[in-house]
Amino acid sequence: MTYCVAVRVDDGLVMLSDTRTNAGMDNIARFRKTFTYEVKGERAIAIMCSGNLSITQEVKSCLSRAIKDSAEDPEIETILNCATMHRAAQLVGDAMRSVQKRYRPTIEMQGSAADASIMVAGQRRGGKPRLYLVYSAGNFIEATADTPFFQIGDHKYGKPILDRIITPVTSLEEATKAVCVSMDSTIRSNLSVGMPLDLTIIQRDAFTFRTRARIEADDEQFAAISRAWSAALRKGFEDLPDVLG
Amino acid sequence: MTYCVAVRVDDGLVMLSDTRTNAGMDNIARFRKTFTYEVKGERAIAIMCSGNLSITQEVKSCLSRAIKDSAEDPEIETILNCATMHRAAQLVGDAMRSVQKRYRPTIEMQGSAADASIMVAGQRRGGKPRLYLVYSAGNFIEATADTPFFQIGDHKYGKPILDRIITPVTSLEEATKAVCVSMDSTIRSNLSVGMPLDLTIIQRDAFTFRTRARIEADDEQFAAISRAWSAALRKGFEDLPDVLG
Repeated sequence: MTYCVAVRVDDGLVMLSDTRTNAGMDNIARFRKTFTYEVKGERAIAIMCSGNLSITQEVKSCLSRAIKDSAEDPEIETILNCATMHRAAQLVGDAMRSVQKRYRPTIEMQGSAADASIMVAGQRRGGKPRLYLVYSAGNFIEATADTPFFQIGDHKYGKPILDRIITPVTSLEEATKAVCVSMDSTIRSNLSVGMPLDLTIIQRDAFTFRTRARIEADDEQFAAISRAWSAALRKGFEDLPDVLG
Repeated sequence: MTYCVAVRVDDGLVMLSDTRTNAGMDNIARFRKTFTYEVKGERAIAIMCSGNLSITQEVKSCLSRAIKDSAEDPEIETILNCATMHRAAQLVGDAMRSVQKRYRPTIEMQGSAADASIMVAGQRRGGKPRLYLVYSAGNFIEATADTPFFQIGDHKYGKPILDRIITPVTSLEEATKAVCVSMDSTIRSNLSVGMPLDLTIIQRDAFTFRTRARIEADDEQFAAISRAWSAALRKGFEDLPDVLG
């Protein structure tokens, strides 16, 4: 399984992903799910992947190959030179569609699932911070003020805290704490989501990454958040009004 | 969808269920999912249902018919006269198996799901408080000190708080608050789980119900829990240590 969460607030974008993949409970591995692309001072983009790993790796290869080829031939459109973030999401969707077309029939014929989804978060100079969720069919939706975050993978355990906390005016600091708490709740309840984590933060109008950090299992800051949250829940619990008549 | 949660602590049993059923997003109805049976001073049993409503209603009919018939013929074994709670769970499982045998093939042939699950919680004089989860095949598991709660229906949103709070030594009061918070989180995140709620509490060695309450949408105590919990989460959030470098 996977858990990736991305938040778009007025101040920028915050993304957090785990690194655990599994094919059955007895086949666990570690793969990075967040990938970053930037032209410093012009744009910074993060993509986060869930679903069939062979599909998402191939989509990522397509994107990288285009970037490499565009060094020779600047006419080639890539997520690093395209006009808008919306166009970048389209390019990810195009790559998804092409990869699905090649592999999906065979994968499904053999009884496996080819579904995958990819979040695309970033900002280019002249545009606003944008967050998109690209589906297996290459279609996509964009986060808005009403729904300022997306989750992929096992989203349920970590959703209640985001529902309560995240609004467009949430600060990057608070959004970062929220995604950490959301991930912590998911890891506690779902064995197939696990450390280490990848945290990516893009501050509005910086056109580079404020943070690209791997959070290891022994990370003291994350452990402190986890402990403080547990303590806060217990304290909040003690202070709840009585319900028994 | 449905959300039912049952907790077995040293002091007794706490059950909470919603009342929303749906066949598609555009076909919402209200059905009670908790049913109580007692012989005052001898035993108190609550069952909670999720899954195919026609299946669970029929299982309940079987249990009720046996109880009615046993008034004429005391030889008939029912959940109210059987020797142990374990045997009561077996009787629910037997009813489930018989109903599944009659309807499952036809239901599945027509493309619907016949799955259902039923929690059986109670205590009889001479035994301990027991909590069982009966599956579609009539087999069942029992809650233990290691896993002192069961959930059926959409369990994920409301699980993290239970994972953190519930242990065998949790008081009935705290367990009740925990299931209320768990339900509140689920209702906020899943439209197909909704008020009113049914709360059932069985205190250890009382052999009757301490609480059998319907909690309506405008219930002031539940709203107070919900508000206090929101406030506690926000306060807990503000007090979290920084994670941004």
